[in-house]
Amino acid sequence: MIVSIIGLGLIGGSAALKLKKSGFADQVIGVDVNDEHADKAKALGLVDDTLVLPKALAISDLVILAIPVDSIRKLLPSVLDRIEEGTTVIDLGSTKSGICGAVLGHINRKNFVAAHPIAGTENSGPEAAFDSLFDGKTGIICDKEESQESSYLLAKACLEAMDMHVVEMDSKSHDLHIAYVSHLSHISSFVLGQTVLEIEKDEATIFNMAGSGFESTVRLAKSSPKMWGPIFKQNQKHISDSLGAYIENLKAFKNMIDEGQEEAMMDCMENANEIRRVLDGINDKSKEREKLNQII
Amino acid sequence: MIVSIIGLGLIGGSAALKLKKSGFADQVIGVDVNDEHADKAKALGLVDDTLVLPKALAISDLVILAIPVDSIRKLLPSVLDRIEEGTTVIDLGSTKSGICGAVLGHINRKNFVAAHPIAGTENSGPEAAFDSLFDGKTGIICDKEESQESSYLLAKACLEAMDMHVVEMDSKSHDLHIAYVSHLSHISSFVLGQTVLEIEKDEATIFNMAGSGFESTVRLAKSSPKMWGPIFKQNQKHISDSLGAYIENLKAFKNMIDEGQEEAMMDCMENANEIRRVLDGINDKSKEREKLNQII
Repeated sequence: MIVSIIGLGLIGGSAALKLKKSGFADQVIGVDVNDEHADKAKALGLVDDTLVLPKALAISDLVILAIPVDSIRKLLPSVLDRIEEGTTVIDLGSTKSGICGAVLGHINRKNFVAAHPIAGTENSGPEAAFDSLFDGKTGIICDKEESQESSYLLAKACLEAMDMHVVEMDSKSHDLHIAYVSHLSHISSFVLGQTVLEIEKDEATIFNMAGSGFESTVRLAKSSPKMWGPIFKQNQKHISDSLGAYIENLKAFKNMIDEGQEEAMMDCMENANEIRRVLDGINDKSKEREKLNQII
Repeated sequence: MIVSIIGLGLIGGSAALKLKKSGFADQVIGVDVNDEHADKAKALGLVDDTLVLPKALAISDLVILAIPVDSIRKLLPSVLDRIEEGTTVIDLGSTKSGICGAVLGHINRKNFVAAHPIAGTENSGPEAAFDSLFDGKTGIICDKEESQESSYLLAKACLEAMDMHVVEMDSKSHDLHIAYVSHLSHISSFVLGQTVLEIEKDEATIFNMAGSGFESTVRLAKSSPKMWGPIFKQNQKHISDSLGAYIENLKAFKNMIDEGQEEAMMDCMENANEIRRVLDGINDKSKEREKLNQII
């Protein structure tokens, strides 16, 4: 099978590596408007070859869009205009409603499968790609009923070849929940980084006083603005709601500190501690899946 | 040298292991008001023996307080009342002004050295202890001029035996800066955990949609309320200021999202990206120190 990947950054590059390594793709073609990225992806061996978009579309069984969500929204309709009848198109963007909305009613909508791999790092560009990025992670497929069965099955097989566990939901629910579980933590981290840099003009202080806790909490502040700006715009309403809820809770916590309401503060922290049980559950599940994969 | 460690949780237990392993302590005595902790610490081999406080004080060259900061503040004056002339006392609390203030003018103030190791994990209790917790980290000593030279030198040697790099500052500056660089990130994380748990009543959603980014940002929400409540209380003013600044920045970011001010949002994220350079600096420095240690 010939797979074309549009966008050769962290996500596209890692998908390219994995689909080749797993044998799912016989040939991986890279497409990137940034020539430097395209050349680097080829030099790094992420893709077998690079082509311009029309040529790639003409020969591909599967086309994967791994570009920022605003670019997916712009490009997807014209990709669907130009594909061959048997070609399937997947996107890997972090928002889903706007993207699905952009091709609602398109004559080739059935060839498209909306996907979101819950995987990433704070790094970007072809150099950041690695073949195990998606191992054991969740791959979400949205609005499955809008895709023809053959395209859905191919997309599912593709995510599974990338070692992901597939979960299905509708694009509206996806955007609501992902605002809380992913997008909000990026904003909390960006703004934490900003706040600390504003006050600590002398970096030596951060050098001397920052521990692994700060590093962990602020890690996502290193993420690419070009990728995240469009996400915040496309999922505006849900992100604004989640950020509003976070700000209200922070104000309440500040008030507890200011008023010395120790018991309320303890209750708050004890409730937040529940996240340990939830996260341990995720890790157990992921380990179980790894074991299962080894047995298979 | 006989070292007594009061408080056998993550910090005290890890210090015990390391001071024994490094040869700094010939004997490590553990003291804990919680009998279960004391027994577990002995069973786990963290300490050579456990004693009640008066007996431990009577035989120790060095006494290390590794208990929550409110307990340090309460206990420290009476520990200084009861020590032998040649004994040095160190605390390892995460706030410093209040603790130094509690023994200001004490006849044995000179025997006390205020310290803060920039090390920890989200776990607590004797089972969480491990001997490399402090390796390559910063150990801060505050208000050095209040300690007699012999005690200061012993404390410094102790932190260095724990593989820490010693930095000195006054306790007031410590509390101001640590509010931003450590305490604030714990609150941002606790409240992020709380906010997500409030909205996502169905844990399956968190299971399916949480990635490593969320895990990293929310990790500190697992931390011990019993340890952090007293820190938030003791460093109330600076933490309230830092939290206020964080809330204002989040409100401004929410406004940019609501108003679609894309450029302002990009500027904000690009500024926050600077944290990468700062954190890379920390890691390089810590690697350099590791190399240096290997050469020595």
